[in-house]
Amino acid sequence: MNKKKIDINQYIRPCCRNFEPYVAGKPIETIKRELGLKNVIKLASNENPIGPSSKAVKAIKNTANNVFFYPDSNSWKLRKAVSKKFRIDISSILLGSGSDEIIELLAKAFFMPQDEIVVSEHAFIRYKMAGDLLDSTVVTIPMENYTHNLKAMFKAINEKTKAVFIANPNNPTGTYNDTGEMEEFLKNISELSCERKPLVIMDEAYYEYARSFKDYPETLKYIADYPNLIILRTFSKIYGLAGLRVGYGFTSRDIVDYIERIRPPFNITSISQEAAVASLNDLSQVKKSVRMVNEQRDFLYNELKKINLMYIPSAANFILIDVAPKAGQDVFREMLKEGVIVRAMDEYNLPNHVRVSIGLPKQNRFFITKLKKVLNRKRG
Amino acid sequence: MNKKKIDINQYIRPCCRNFEPYVAGKPIETIKRELGLKNVIKLASNENPIGPSSKAVKAIKNTANNVFFYPDSNSWKLRKAVSKKFRIDISSILLGSGSDEIIELLAKAFFMPQDEIVVSEHAFIRYKMAGDLLDSTVVTIPMENYTHNLKAMFKAINEKTKAVFIANPNNPTGTYNDTGEMEEFLKNISELSCERKPLVIMDEAYYEYARSFKDYPETLKYIADYPNLIILRTFSKIYGLAGLRVGYGFTSRDIVDYIERIRPPFNITSISQEAAVASLNDLSQVKKSVRMVNEQRDFLYNELKKINLMYIPSAANFILIDVAPKAGQDVFREMLKEGVIVRAMDEYNLPNHVRVSIGLPKQNRFFITKLKKVLNRKRG
Repeated sequence: MNKKKIDINQYIRPCCRNFEPYVAGKPIETIKRELGLKNVIKLASNENPIGPSSKAVKAIKNTANNVFFYPDSNSWKLRKAVSKKFRIDISSILLGSGSDEIIELLAKAFFMPQDEIVVSEHAFIRYKMAGDLLDSTVVTIPMENYTHNLKAMFKAINEKTKAVFIANPNNPTGTYNDTGEMEEFLKNISELSCERKPLVIMDEAYYEYARSFKDYPETLKYIADYPNLIILRTFSKIYGLAGLRVGYGFTSRDIVDYIERIRPPFNITSISQEAAVASLNDLSQVKKSVRMVNEQRDFLYNELKKINLMYIPSAANFILIDVAPKAGQDVFREMLKEGVIVRAMDEYNLPNHVRVSIGLPKQNRFFITKLKKVLNRKRG
Repeated sequence: MNKKKIDINQYIRPCCRNFEPYVAGKPIETIKRELGLKNVIKLASNENPIGPSSKAVKAIKNTANNVFFYPDSNSWKLRKAVSKKFRIDISSILLGSGSDEIIELLAKAFFMPQDEIVVSEHAFIRYKMAGDLLDSTVVTIPMENYTHNLKAMFKAINEKTKAVFIANPNNPTGTYNDTGEMEEFLKNISELSCERKPLVIMDEAYYEYARSFKDYPETLKYIADYPNLIILRTFSKIYGLAGLRVGYGFTSRDIVDYIERIRPPFNITSISQEAAVASLNDLSQVKKSVRMVNEQRDFLYNELKKINLMYIPSAANFILIDVAPKAGQDVFREMLKEGVIVRAMDEYNLPNHVRVSIGLPKQNRFFITKLKKVLNRKRG
């Protein structure tokens, strides 16, 4: 088997040949190593800097000696805890290794090469990647004011449309569609003829932050009436368990049944299951996190205004900032050298923006100081 | 959107419609709950009852407070540690959420509906599931003496064959193909014309146990010459980290490159990465585990002989036992009531066998006592 004779590219599924890997936020350790920096703060991945619930930390430590057992394949305790917390039947709950895995599970169960998947421009990029992985055609609808244009997305639906992804609020824009828009969209979907009803996949990863806004829709109540609606949530954001990969979702029993059939049997680690259950029992960590984000968002808005920087008002724990005429990549690189990891937005087709996660008060002050330095801006 | 009007089955990819979920070993807590038992031992999932390295436990506890950060997407520390341990370049290393995920990643990258995937009868069932998920045709080759028949598997290769799966040693039979057989198989593959060379996916989940057997092949050295060879290993078995989901593999740089493109960005939790790195630094836990399995395997062989039960000699930490004329399912159920979880083998087409993992000495004695009771056997 001569090495030179084999061209692996020819073995690969054609739809995977031009895949680009997902660009993750850089870990602090990587930056310290690569740039020889001692103090680095990460405001790149919309993590919760308050950290996990102390109850979750305790659960992790208590489970450490038992990791030689496989995880409970059904995540029974976690499923029950989610069911109780949200008062929804256990048969309507999806669990995954992050909501990211649930997105891919939905793709593997449903998406076919002849299907179209409708997504929004500037929406979380993993939706498109899921469509591409199954060789479906991904149809991208322009935003309106950096917000999902639900009317245009509805118009894009045709007999080939298998699913519509709505990120609410959206990452990286932080914008959301309000209750009125959402109800109209779902009503329009319900009035389609049966053959044309697509799945509606509603990603609410930042739900707990967004619900501070009064016109943010409470979608869970629609599950009973819309069997093709899927709502995704996560333990990665407000619960501070990003490192442990736990996402969850709500949908009809039939969809859960099919997803369960193709789900990898041990998709959530034993420690992650225990930490997630413990987190659900700690309301104080959630309240404290929401309060801090609300306060610090206002602080950052004010500081950005002072230096005449445009930003998109956000319903989540991050802000998309317009750094034009500078390239987002340049700002990202220069901020890195100052010890602040933010996120450039090239893969979201936003080459003059950076996204910054809302950190602890002192992190946000540090960020503003360094941003002024990098942009060479003074109070306007 | 009237509930009754939507038939989710029509939305599902046809190849997924008849999927059966993987049957996992029952967790102890589930059995205690379902049967109201106080003392239950689990010998159903080939876990390492000695448990994880104390270094791994320490690493888990030390990482607990930092789980609000996303995992390092590249698992850099772990990749480096595996590279150092096995003296193989970092560009040849695959990492996954269990080797289970690596199997699915290979399927997603390579398997197409027009492809054939060659597997052995009674081989680990996840290979077939990976082929089915991508709608490839899975070709199953009968075993010879409960062992992969490599000659027959080679003969089954044709121009449609995309991959051949070899579990060595195999779960659930515990049998292995020796160095001579493996070298002949690889040589035969190398002599195929270029268009017909399939991927050879060698699952060595039980490698550390099997290498006590002198004619067990050391395959890592073949990687350099066979760019289509993929070797899979895991932290779930001897390292006692089944609950944390970490698998690894070795293959050519080209294959790693493509897998990295479609890999979920955060497939290994932060805690799992740290625990795996720590485990690689604890040789004593591995040595102790191998010694115990070798001793206890002999103990179990002796006890099974005394009660005239047939078993398949095993190179791993489990034994496949022939309980005919009883049904394996019945023995499984009756053993459950006695507080011993073993595994029935129906989905492996072995209806008169049970698989028992080799436990701690007292667990094995308990197992034998209960097995005698259930089978109503006395010393032969």
